[in-house]
Amino acid sequence: MFLVGPCYGSGVAGPRGEYRKSAERRAQILDAAFTVFSRDGYTAGSVNEIARVVGITQTGVLHHFAGGKPALLQAVLEQRDARAELLLADRTGREFLTGLVEISRSQESRRGLVQLYRRLAAEAVDATHPAHDYFATRFQRIVDAVTDAFAEVAGQGGLRPGLDPRDAALQAVAMTEGQELLWLHGFKIDLAAATEAFLDTLLVEPL
Amino acid sequence: MFLVGPCYGSGVAGPRGEYRKSAERRAQILDAAFTVFSRDGYTAGSVNEIARVVGITQTGVLHHFAGGKPALLQAVLEQRDARAELLLADRTGREFLTGLVEISRSQESRRGLVQLYRRLAAEAVDATHPAHDYFATRFQRIVDAVTDAFAEVAGQGGLRPGLDPRDAALQAVAMTEGQELLWLHGFKIDLAAATEAFLDTLLVEPL
Repeated sequence: MFLVGPCYGSGVAGPRGEYRKSAERRAQILDAAFTVFSRDGYTAGSVNEIARVVGITQTGVLHHFAGGKPALLQAVLEQRDARAELLLADRTGREFLTGLVEISRSQESRRGLVQLYRRLAAEAVDATHPAHDYFATRFQRIVDAVTDAFAEVAGQGGLRPGLDPRDAALQAVAMTEGQELLWLHGFKIDLAAATEAFLDTLLVEPL
Repeated sequence: MFLVGPCYGSGVAGPRGEYRKSAERRAQILDAAFTVFSRDGYTAGSVNEIARVVGITQTGVLHHFAGGKPALLQAVLEQRDARAELLLADRTGREFLTGLVEISRSQESRRGLVQLYRRLAAEAVDATHPAHDYFATRFQRIVDAVTDAFAEVAGQGGLRPGLDPRDAALQAVAMTEGQELLWLHGFKIDLAAATEAFLDTLLVEPL
């Protein structure tokens, strides 16, 4: 979805009562929201600019996303997570950890998405930011899931001796986030290889 | 400097020709710029709001920082770096690495500063951002300096066998950045202890 470019539309009023066209317009708006938030961040990004990119009015955008800018942000983030959750669904233990490597690999071709995420995560530290709860909950959920995976591995004797599963999870998530930041800032880092190499330092047997 | 709160001034015109008062006003403006950029980010932060916090006019701010918002950002960042550079001056090898742990420790009492830095680093990934070159250069400089420290340690046989000094540096910087992000998002992480524990995994002898 994110690979589809923004649509510079014709500016005609959106069709009513046609579900397919409405869904297409909604997808166009989400693509535009993704583009604008990636470039300007959430705070400085505007519904007006998103409307301009799609080629419709601000009212047209609000017709599809009545909640305005926060609703657009929410939808963009949910779209991003759906992908990762699909990949990790039903995996546990070492298979889950291998999934993290695959997610890192998929980031390499989605620089804009990684940039948007990174920027929003930084903005959202502010407790008044509309994505604050989303990111706080999201990080907790990720760390919990990775902790579960390491706990399962530890139960099979596969975690490095003396390492606590939660500490291992915090380290793995911190390393992944930090590597993405350096990569975004121009360092030549193979994200998948780096993630795998780091996870291997925490395990008795490499992935 | 950053610990001094913003000054809600009286709004009287700034004194002219008095160096000390001019320096004080400059410091007040920098404190306000720090406060506003920390809260709103750089893109959404405004000179007008910085002026309001100090209690002077926008023209008053521009009298002290003729370069406007980019000049204010530059000054805030330089003030931050001066502190860290002072701490690391003349240190090499393991002493330099110990300095990194001390910097992590000092972050714990400077949450706002860490938040500003994190946010700007994320915004500045955009090549048109005024701090883009600053952050790109800064990360390179940090990774180079940490690489030098690990190379010296490696020369003394103190780096974990098979580990390349530059890879070790990239990992150490990525881990520190990632841990700060999680800490900002509410995870209870002892930044100094976590930095030291991670550096120890790269070394033959713990710090």
